Order: sequence, then structure tokens, then C-alpha cells
Amino acid sequence: MKPYSEMTREELQEELLPLRKQYLHFQEMELQLDMSRGKPCREQLDLSMGMMDALYSEADLSAEDGTDVRNYGVLTGIPEAKVLIGAMMENNPENIIIYGNSSLNVMYDTVSRAYTHGIMGNIPWGKLQKTKFLCPVPGYDRHFKITEYFGIEMIPVPMTPTGPDMDMVERLVSEDEAIKGIWCVPKYSNPQGYSYSDETVRRFARLKPAARDFRIFWDNAYGIHHLYDDHQDYLIEILDECRRAGNPDLVYKFSSTSKVTFPGSGIAALATSLNNLQDIMNQLKIQTIGHDKVNQLRHARFFKDINAMKEHMRKHAAIIRPKFELLEEIFEKNLGGLGIGTWTKPRGGYFISFDTLPGCAKAIVDKVKKGGVVMTTAGATWPYGKDPQDSNIRVAPTYPPLEDLRTAAELFTLCVKIISLEKLLSEMSE
Amino acid sequence: MKPYSEMTREELQEELLPLRKQYLHFQEMELQLDMSRGKPCREQLDLSMGMMDALYSEADLSAEDGTDVRNYGVLTGIPEAKVLIGAMMENNPENIIIYGNSSLNVMYDTVSRAYTHGIMGNIPWGKLQKTKFLCPVPGYDRHFKITEYFGIEMIPVPMTPTGPDMDMVERLVSEDEAIKGIWCVPKYSNPQGYSYSDETVRRFARLKPAARDFRIFWDNAYGIHHLYDDHQDYLIEILDECRRAGNPDLVYKFSSTSKVTFPGSGIAALATSLNNLQDIMNQLKIQTIGHDKVNQLRHARFFKDINAMKEHMRKHAAIIRPKFELLEEIFEKNLGGLGIGTWTKPRGGYFISFDTLPGCAKAIVDKVKKGGVVMTTAGATWPYGKDPQDSNIRVAPTYPPLEDLRTAAELFTLCVKIISLEKLLSEMSE
Repeated sequence: MKPYSEMTREELQEELLPLRKQYLHFQEMELQLDMSRGKPCREQLDLSMGMMDALYSEADLSAEDGTDVRNYGVLTGIPEAKVLIGAMMENNPENIIIYGNSSLNVMYDTVSRAYTHGIMGNIPWGKLQKTKFLCPVPGYDRHFKITEYFGIEMIPVPMTPTGPDMDMVERLVSEDEAIKGIWCVPKYSNPQGYSYSDETVRRFARLKPAARDFRIFWDNAYGIHHLYDDHQDYLIEILDECRRAGNPDLVYKFSSTSKVTFPGSGIAALATSLNNLQDIMNQLKIQTIGHDKVNQLRHARFFKDINAMKEHMRKHAAIIRPKFELLEEIFEKNLGGLGIGTWTKPRGGYFISFDTLPGCAKAIVDKVKKGGVVMTTAGATWPYGKDPQDSNIRVAPTYPPLEDLRTAAELFTLCVKIISLEKLLSEMSE
Repeated sequence: MKPYSEMTREELQEELLPLRKQYLHFQEMELQLDMSRGKPCREQLDLSMGMMDALYSEADLSAEDGTDVRNYGVLTGIPEAKVLIGAMMENNPENIIIYGNSSLNVMYDTVSRAYTHGIMGNIPWGKLQKTKFLCPVPGYDRHFKITEYFGIEMIPVPMTPTGPDMDMVERLVSEDEAIKGIWCVPKYSNPQGYSYSDETVRRFARLKPAARDFRIFWDNAYGIHHLYDDHQDYLIEILDECRRAGNPDLVYKFSSTSKVTFPGSGIAALATSLNNLQDIMNQLKIQTIGHDKVNQLRHARFFKDINAMKEHMRKHAAIIRPKFELLEEIFEKNLGGLGIGTWTKPRGGYFISFDTLPGCAKAIVDKVKKGGVVMTTAGATWPYGKDPQDSNIRVAPTYPPLEDLRTAAELFTLCVKIISLEKLLSEMSE
């Protein structure tokens, strides 16, 4: 098949006609599929059902240090949970605060605290005329919603397969005191599945921000979420690197077990320098008496150690790897060589990033939806939901069963072709 | 025994001498007892161990509406949890948001949201020159810490056995637009154990605040926490009363199962009007994808309905009632008729409020501490930790075992006597 861009008007029209008939066929199927979010599927959730037996009525609910986890207290988490999550995050237990069930909530609270009370004695962001965040794009919509909600101006920074454009990041943060942070998903990024290179991490740790209260918001959501045993991405640990670079307080690092055990019933955590921790604790002690220690103990008893957790993640991978591979296979089969779309081939994480011809993403997602499959809203991967090229689509393979996913992928690629053809034809007639 | 105030200097000195010897005896015991906070004791926690079996690896973790509680989603809570907590709070399930493990966290977030984004389109509190809260005193220290943290000026309002001084409340909120809220523990109040009278609740619902964004922060922490079956306090339901009074949006009501099941691993909730709920949801959807639904289901399956929960609370009462009665007995035995202290006799809740002679509370708590028993810091029941009379002490009977409590109460009453005598003697010599 030759690229669409090399086809004549007649060839394009000839190509389009049967595709429209195929689309009608999909509509007759009255599909109701959802691949909009990065949700684990039922089989993945079943992997953690043993955790429901980790604590039981006859069990001793004391932590290692003797704390009765059922009662009040222990603001930063029980020791065994800190050890386990520390191993998962590759951080010292003493650098960790264990929170509730949602790392998103921790990130929101982190921005909110900076907004109301400032970071380490600096002026609260809410008292400043202007605050800005750097946003590698495409990126995670829920990150962008937080900064938008707090009126923080978002500056898009292009992503590359080795991380954000670091020349641009270095220049902007060193020039502009209003820039207070950057959103990063450094490993198996959302939505591309890219991992930051060693050089990128080293340059992050050596940033020279104009603002003393600039922080890297390092959302390592997919630190152990590999798809393959033999082809895995690795990431330099950022807290260590910042310390080595003489910038120990530069980063807030977030993680959770949401996609290890149960989304919504996992445990979230933050790792950062002791200075930052103390600053956070001054607020946290006002906000709560402590987080859910029973659930912390449940996780610690279920996994026992990081090796069991990594073994557990291999089981996740065995379930979702075929879904990623199926999508890549169908994308290649239906779109390969046509020059109307490119897509990433991640080795971990929860997403594939798909780029259409400029101006096509919204129309494609709309058409897929009318065919019965909900995808992430086009534009969602950009600040304010506005993709200037209208070309990026986030594809989430994990939730639907494999056969549904096949149908959805066929419909999606069909819509990519139809919309691209219509676009090319309309440009010819202009 | 005649009141100390009627004694001569010689009589007072004679009284004091043997007490000081008794105190030395306590110090030799090297006690290490903690009655500083309203913590349930081990036997109370054991009551809920069955909840650890409510979910297990073979259980179906679907909510009534089919939601897989293990996965993401459901921002306001699963239906059966809303029904259960609704019954506990005496509110419609549709008026309820189920949160995480801590109602204190919900209250903090409620103030924080008003501070950063305002209530229902009003100017954010953080953008105003001055904001104020009314604080019935003595009251709950953690409430006061939240408003202090946000720089909200706190105005003490005297508590009475029927609730706050409502003449003062009505006058202040109608006159001063800077007054944005009032902290209330309306039933078995912290620390007195008072419950608001019908008239008080009706007057609350009919407040005419100058500020459109004034809200009553109604922390009904002890709604079902009775000590007696036959002598219980009742409270008019505030949301209903506000609606009847034509002020449907006037109140945020908070509650949790922290002292029903496990502190720190219960579920917290907020009940309010649909208008307020919508306003809150606009923020909540930015902050999180959802709270811990597995724990919601665990609670719902364990209790099944409100009757079982009330039966469960009778078991709590059977454990802690003797502790309250023991304290009252020892207080009466050791202090009755001396005119150096008064104390409340609550029919529910977690505290007894003790009032010393003016200027004695801090010295008493210090002396008790040197004797080996930690109590709530004197002053904590007042905004900014400053009790102008230095007379109020919060007594928390629930946590220590009965025999420890007896020792602690003997030490406490001994210290009340010693400090009061020293005070009276020093006044004579002035």
C-alpha cells in the first residue's frame, strides 16, 4: 500500500468508499466499549485477592514496632510499609511518607499546600501575581487539571523519547522565577511509555531554577510496571542524583500501589529530602491524625518483600502484554506505510501514544465514539485540553478483554483511515 | 470536709503536708500512663475484628450496583456505604459524600477549598483581608488548629449546657461579614459532653449571616456514641432543620466511623445540601479519582444495617461507661465539697471537662505529668492554646485500663488539691 499522501484524488475516493461501508457495519454491532482510562482489567485485580486474607479476625494487628495499627496515630506510616514502599520506590524508608489511597490526592495536596502556605518559608503561590508550571507534552491530563485549577499558567515543553526537551527546560527555569514546577512521569511516561535517559535525569538534578521554591513533581507511577522481563527500561533514582548534584531539596517524588494491588484501595507515598519532609509534616499534622495503617499492614503482610511484589508485577505483565502487542499488530497491519499515523511501542506503563495527521485527532475520537468505543478525549494530553496540532490520541489497552480490544482497534484504525482520507480530500478541493 | 476557701492559713498548710507525701509516693511508682487523647482502648478495637473477615479472597467485591470496588472510580461512594452512613448520620444517601479515613482531613480540605477557591462563587477566603471563625469554648483543639493554620481569626464563644451562647452567635454572624464559620461538636461535645438543645439547633438553622459564604461546621463526631441505653441525648437533625428554615445551604456536617470501627481505618463522610455537594464535587474531581471503596464495602458488609451498628455501639458503651463512672466517683470522693473544681457528667462522647480554680490548670497538668500521667495540654481547648482563665482541663477516660485509670484519677485529684492549696496560700501571702 502506498502512502495516502502520494495518492490521487481518485485513488483516495476509491479507498474511502469501502471503508465507509465497514464503518456502518461497526455501527450495526452497537458496541459499548471503554478504553478511555488506564484501568487494570478484572484479571489483574484478581491477582491481588489474596490480600483480602492477609489480615483476619484472629490476626495480630501490631506493626513491627508494636504499634496497634487499628488505633490513632503514626503520621508518616508504619515501618514495614515504609520499607516495602521504599524498596518499590528505590528510596530510604526515612525519606518516605505513606499516605492514603491516591497519589493524585498527594500531588493535589502538595500544590495546594504550596498555594496556601508556600514551600519552606517562601511566599505562598496564591499570594504571587503569576505562577507557572512546565508541562511536557503530550502528558497526563489529571496533572494538568490540578495546575489549571490553581490558576497556574502551564507552558508546554515537547517530549522526546529520552524525556522533555532539556535545553528548553534548563533555559526556562533558570530565567523565570514564576516557574515553580514541572510535571514529570519519568518512566513509561503517560501517554508515550517513554523513559527518561540517564542524561535527562542528570540534567534534571542539576537544574538551576531562578525560583527557590521550584520543585520537580516526579510522578513515578510506573516504576515497576514493566511489560517484559528481558526488555526493561531503567531510571536513575532522582533523589540520590539530586543529592549528588548538591540540590537535595529539588524534587517531590510520588508513587502508589494503585496499579500493583487495587486502584482506589492501594497505598500512595511521597519520597523527598528530610528538609522537604519536615516542611510537609508541619502541614500534614494539621490535616490529619494519620492515614489508614490497617491497609498499610495489609500490603506489607501480603507482599512481605519487594521480590514478591516484582513477581506479582510479572503476572500483571503476562495479562496486559498481549493487549499492547495486539494493538501494535493491528496498527501495523492496518496503518503501516500509509503515512497517516505514528505510535509508540512502550516496554511498560499503561498507554500507547498515537499521533494522527494534524487536525484529525478530535474527529477520529468522535467517530470512534459514534462507533461505540470511548477513548480518552482528544486534546486531554495537553494543558487546558488544547492540542495545538489536534493530532495526539492516548490509547489505553489494559481494561477491555482481548477480543473487545481487537474490535476496538479495528474500529479505531478504520476511523483513522476515514478521517485522514476525508482530510486529504478536503485539502485537495481547497 | 469544708471548702478550701473557708480554711485558715494553718488549716490549708495542714491539709497540704500529707498530700505532698502522697505525691512523692506516686512519683516512686514511676508511672507511664497516657490519657491525653480520645483514643479507644484495646477492648474496644477488638469489637471490630470481625470486620477483617467481612471481605476475603473468595468474596465477590461488587457493590450493589455492580461496581467492582477494586477498580478506579465512584467519586462519592458506593450505594450501600451511603445508605449505612446516611442512617448513622440521619441523612439522605444522596446528600452524602463518603471520603477516606479521616473526618478531620475532610474538615481541613473544606476550609482549604474555601481558602483557595471560595464557596459557591464567593471570593476565596485567602483573597480577603480578614476572615474569622466563631469557636465555642472550651472546644476541640484540632478544629482550632485548622483555622489557626489558615490565618483565620478565632473568636471564643462561651459554651453552656445547651450549646454555644446563641445570643452572641446570632449577633456576631449578622453583624460581621468577615465571620465565615463556626466550629460545632453538637452532640456529646468535646470536651464537655454537652448536647445542643432543640432551641439551640433551631436558632442555628435560622441564623442570618452577613456573609453569604458563612457555613456551620457541624462535626457530629459522637452522634451514636452513647454511654447509656436509658439516658441518651437527642439532637435535631441540622440539614432538615436548615431546609425547613429556608437556609438549606447553611451547614457542612461531618462524621466518621473512627470511634465505631477503627480510628484511622474507618470511613469519613460529609453531608450537606445538593448545592453545596455540587460545589464540592467541582473540586473533589480534581483532587482524586475516588476514595477507598474496598473499605466502604468492608464496613457495609460487616454491619449490614444501622441496627447492627447501634448494637455494636452498646458494646463500646459497656467497655467505657465504667471508666467514666470511675472518674466521676473518684472526683466526687476526693474533691466533692472542696470548691476547687467542677466537672461535667456526660451521657456520651469521649471526654469529661474539668474546671479548676482560675490560674491552676497548667500547673496541675504539669504536676500530673511529672507524676507519670500525660493529659491533654492545658489551654488546648481554647483557640491558640490560650485559656484566659487557665482553668479548663480535658479529661479522656477511654484509653487506659480501668486500674490505670484509677491510679491516674487519684494522682490527678491529688494534684488538683495540691496546686489549689498552693494557689490559695500564695494569695493569702500577697
